[in-house]
Order: sequence, then C-alpha cells, then structure tokens
Amino acid sequence: MKEMNSIQNNISDLLKLARKFNCFYLSGICQGTCKPFFVAGNQVGLIRPDVMKHIQRFPEVFNITGTYVELNPAFRDYKERTSKVADMLMKLRKEDEIIALKGWRDECFEVSLPFSSESLLEMDRSAFCLFGIRNYGVSVTGYLYHPTKGLCIWLQQRSFTKQTWPGSWDCFVSGGLAVGYGILETCIKEAAEEASVEGDLINKLLPAGCVSFYFESERGLFPNTEYVYDLELPLDFVPKNADGEVETFELLTAEECIQRALSPHFKTTSAPVLLDFLIRKGYINPENESNYRNLVELLHVPLQSIYSWPFTISNTFNGDNHGSCVDSN
Amino acid sequence: MKEMNSIQNNISDLLKLARKFNCFYLSGICQGTCKPFFVAGNQVGLIRPDVMKHIQRFPEVFNITGTYVELNPAFRDYKERTSKVADMLMKLRKEDEIIALKGWRDECFEVSLPFSSESLLEMDRSAFCLFGIRNYGVSVTGYLYHPTKGLCIWLQQRSFTKQTWPGSWDCFVSGGLAVGYGILETCIKEAAEEASVEGDLINKLLPAGCVSFYFESERGLFPNTEYVYDLELPLDFVPKNADGEVETFELLTAEECIQRALSPHFKTTSAPVLLDFLIRKGYINPENESNYRNLVELLHVPLQSIYSWPFTISNTFNGDNHGSCVDSN
Repeated sequence: MKEMNSIQNNISDLLKLARKFNCFYLSGICQGTCKPFFVAGNQVGLIRPDVMKHIQRFPEVFNITGTYVELNPAFRDYKERTSKVADMLMKLRKEDEIIALKGWRDECFEVSLPFSSESLLEMDRSAFCLFGIRNYGVSVTGYLYHPTKGLCIWLQQRSFTKQTWPGSWDCFVSGGLAVGYGILETCIKEAAEEASVEGDLINKLLPAGCVSFYFESERGLFPNTEYVYDLELPLDFVPKNADGEVETFELLTAEECIQRALSPHFKTTSAPVLLDFLIRKGYINPENESNYRNLVELLHVPLQSIYSWPFTISNTFNGDNHGSCVDSN
Repeated sequence: MKEMNSIQNNISDLLKLARKFNCFYLSGICQGTCKPFFVAGNQVGLIRPDVMKHIQRFPEVFNITGTYVELNPAFRDYKERTSKVADMLMKLRKEDEIIALKGWRDECFEVSLPFSSESLLEMDRSAFCLFGIRNYGVSVTGYLYHPTKGLCIWLQQRSFTKQTWPGSWDCFVSGGLAVGYGILETCIKEAAEEASVEGDLINKLLPAGCVSFYFESERGLFPNTEYVYDLELPLDFVPKNADGEVETFELLTAEECIQRALSPHFKTTSAPVLLDFLIRKGYINPENESNYRNLVELLHVPLQSIYSWPFTISNTFNGDNHGSCVDSN
C-alpha cells in the first residue's frame, strides 16, 4: 500500500489524537473534582469547580450538597425547568465572566436520557459544556475516489467569525441537533446551508454509524456523540457556502487529511469523524496501524453508561461508578 | 424506506441482542464474584468461582490470594509460562470435568497486553474463556446488492461436528488469530478454507474496523474483539467449503439476516459483526432504530481498559475499577 509508510510514522500520533479528544474520559473523570449533576432524579452531567463557584449563587435554582448538584426538584416540568435555567444563564451571561457563554448561540439543545425519548429541559447549546451534558450532532464526510490521487476528502475551514473553533479545519459538513430537528433532517439542512449540496446529490447521503468521545477544554466538558454520514461526490462538484459560517473548502488526499487532523489547525472534536471514516474505508487498517483496535474503541466510548448511577441520589454516594455495569436490566 | 417498519418492530429486539452478547460487560462484572487474574504483574483476565475450585489444586502454578490470582511469578518467560500452563491444562483435560476443555482445539492463542506488542504466554484457545482472557479473531461479511432483493448477505451454518456452536448460523467467514498468523493473513486463509474465496476475488477484501464485546456463557468468559472485513461478491458466486467446518451456506436479504440473528439458531458472539455491517451500510440507521447510538456503543465496549488497574497488585486492592480512567498517561 502506497500510503502505508506515512501512516506507520503516525501510529503513536493517531492514538495520541484519540486520547486527546478523550482526555476527560481517560483522566478527567477519575480526578473526582467534578460534582454529578441531577435533573428530576437522573444524572445528566458533571459540574467542574470553576462552574460551581458561579452556580452557588443561585440556591433557588440548584440544590447543592457535598456530593452532588441537583436542579431544584420543585420545578415541575420541561417548561418550568427550561425557563428557570434560561433566567439564570441570562444573568451569568450579562456578567460576561464565563468563556463558554461568550459563545452564546441562540440555539437550544434538549437535555435527554440515554434510554428514554423523554426530554427534561432545553438550554442554549453554549451552556451544555458548563454542566457536562451530552451533546448530539451530525457530520457528513464528502469524499471521492480521484483517478490519480485515490481517496480524497473535502474539508471545510470554519469562518473566523464562528463562536467556537474560528478558522479551524473541520469536516465537510456538520451541525448540532437543535430542538425540533430530526437527525437526517439536520444533515440535509446543514449540507444545503454549509456546502450547497442539494437535489439528487443529497439523496446519495448514507448513514454509517456514530462516534462517541468525551473531551475537555478550558470552556468545559464535551461528552459528544456525532451521527456520521458519508456522501460520495462527483469529481466536478465544488462546495459553495450559503450561510457565511465557512471560510473555504479544500479537497485533500486521505494522507493530507491525517496530517491536517494532526495539526493544531484542526478542530479536535471533529477528528473522531475523520478517523472513523478512514477506518471504515480501510485506509487506516490493522496492517498499517498497530493501535487499530484501541483506536476503534476510543471512537465509541460508553457515554450511555457514564452517567448511570446504580442507586438514586437519596442513597449513599460512593463516588466511583464509570463505564460498565449499568443499564443491565 | 421499504424495510423500515420491519426493523421498527425489532428496535427493542436489536438492543436486547446487543445486551445479550454483552451480558458480562453489563452485569456480570459488577457482581464481583470473579477474581482478577494477573500474569507478570499485568491483569489479563478474570476467573469465575467454578474455575477457581479446579485451579486451587495447582498451588505450584497459581498464587491465589483473597483478592486475586497470579500466575506463579517464578516462571521466567513466555516459554516457561506456556509449558507450565499447558501441563496443568492437560491434567484438567484428562479429568474431563470442564466443559470448555471438552472443546480442546490444538490451536494456541497468545495472551497479550492492550498497549504492548509483547506476549506473555500462549495456551489452547479452548482455555481462554476459563481465565477471561481477551480473544481476537477476524470476520468477513460476504455480501452483494441483488437487482431485485437489494442488500443480501451470505451466512454459513457451522458444521454439526464443531466443538463450539455446532449447527449454528454464523458470518460468511471467520476465524481466531492463532499464534504466528497475521490479521489479513488469517482472513485470506479462512476465506479460502471455509468458502473457497481465492484469486482476484480475495483482493477485494476491505478492512472496515472491529467490534468489541464481553459475553458470558456456561463455558466461560468471552471478552472478544473481531477485526471486520467486507467482501462484495459477484451475483453468480457460490461459496464452497473446503475444510469440513461448514454445513452449508445461504444467501439472505438484510432483513432475513436480522431475523436469523434474532433467532436461537444464530451464534450469539457473531451477531456484533452482522449488526456493525448493517449499520455501516446504512440498513440499520437513526431513522429506523431508536436505540441506534446505544447499539453502536455496545458494538465497541472498552475492553482495552477493562483489565487496567491503576495500581500494581502489591497495592491495596479496592475491587472496583472498570471502564474509563485508565491508560491516560
């Protein structure tokens, strides 16, 4: 295989990258400095000390104990939880001290549970990372088999005016699952807005799984799941941005994509989608990547069980239950 | 989508199946009835009480404490560990009391570590499940797009004379990674032996990732990782078995495959490969399977970290570290 050697040189780099976008899963969690966050008796997140000092000022919104934080159980339903949390976030936003809230999006995500269609509340997507709430999105890999260059992938450079990762290189098309939008529906909407993919072309969109990882940055905690879709594009297709959120697009070979993903100019939380694609297409394979099976596992960490406590918050809290041994009944 | 309704009816069935082949990951582990098994200071497995009562009779081979079992640290190297364990297994096999050893294979697997190329010892594959040692194999999905039936997959029925799962329905081609064989090499060998796939056809074999799960049966513990390969076959190809290990082959539609996998006649530990294939090909997708993201995670459970203790066996042993928070340095 032509590209084998160049990947060989990146073996440890690819695993390092997978550990980077899982830095919280692999080490942050066990430091035990975050407090579990419960809503209506279910753990939906984790709260870091830097966020605790802000929410402590809202005892009417949060019930804070020595071991956990609970959204005021007096809030009766989705509507009331949503409005109380929105009011609190608005106050914090006005103070302009929290980095994450500087990136306010005016787009709400739902706080849901892994094994239920019921949602507990909604809040602006920029606030999810303050509470370590699971975040869902879609990512489309636009690719083609070039007659001379082989597998090639379209990457986008994010607009320099974006609230998050401005100017960073990213997947062809991606977007968060906002309240009221379906998964495929979000894909089609984003593909049209970000890259002008429409008509017959969009019908070639193929669902191919999802990636789950748990990243942490200065802004907060990111337990993210991305639904991944593949779109094989014609050789003559050139993406055109329609919503001003993209600086430019570039067609790269698979090897160039890996180098780009390993550079500081790539959005860390989009690397899992690229690696998953290159593994599914056989470009990264057991023969050229000795950490292959570990890499594949780190693209699908068990977020469904990371917030499952084997007891209710009224029980004794032993502070160490991650990974397996949950939802077993 | 034509097949959508029929899959809709199986939503809970597909998640039930994923929980079935992960029964030990989801519930067995936390019962805490198994003892960690260490070799040369590394945990490589877990030992159930039913196996403990047999190995307790070999104090010269196993150092057994209240909290763990250790292969005699006086054994100096791969060769010595291998021969001492082989002698012990031979004695147990003669007594003919252990079900797993009735399926003796005369084929050795290596006991290795997740982040090292070094192997600690080798033993007959039939004994791996007694110690809960990680097991690696390859699986090839032979498929085609039928002009009228759409996506179709070749399944094999295992020979009624096989030591494990005799007569059960299984993937097109699969095999364990035996000592001395590479991953792709094993694929090519098994495809030729089991289905007479040779020549130009075998060059179309595409690596597409791997599945990891942790199953338990009467025979023992199965923390398995399967490297998955796809092989698109011509419409007129008919597999012919060459090694007597296959009863018959059958070409099924994707929907028929799901029904077969849900039946008691399908090898439970091969279902992950089929589900992963149908997800990667978009047949099972977010629009027709509401447990989609949970299903995908249960096809890639974190076996790389399940045996990683944050301390050496000389330290205090607190008995509960699974899932995340490992190999973080």
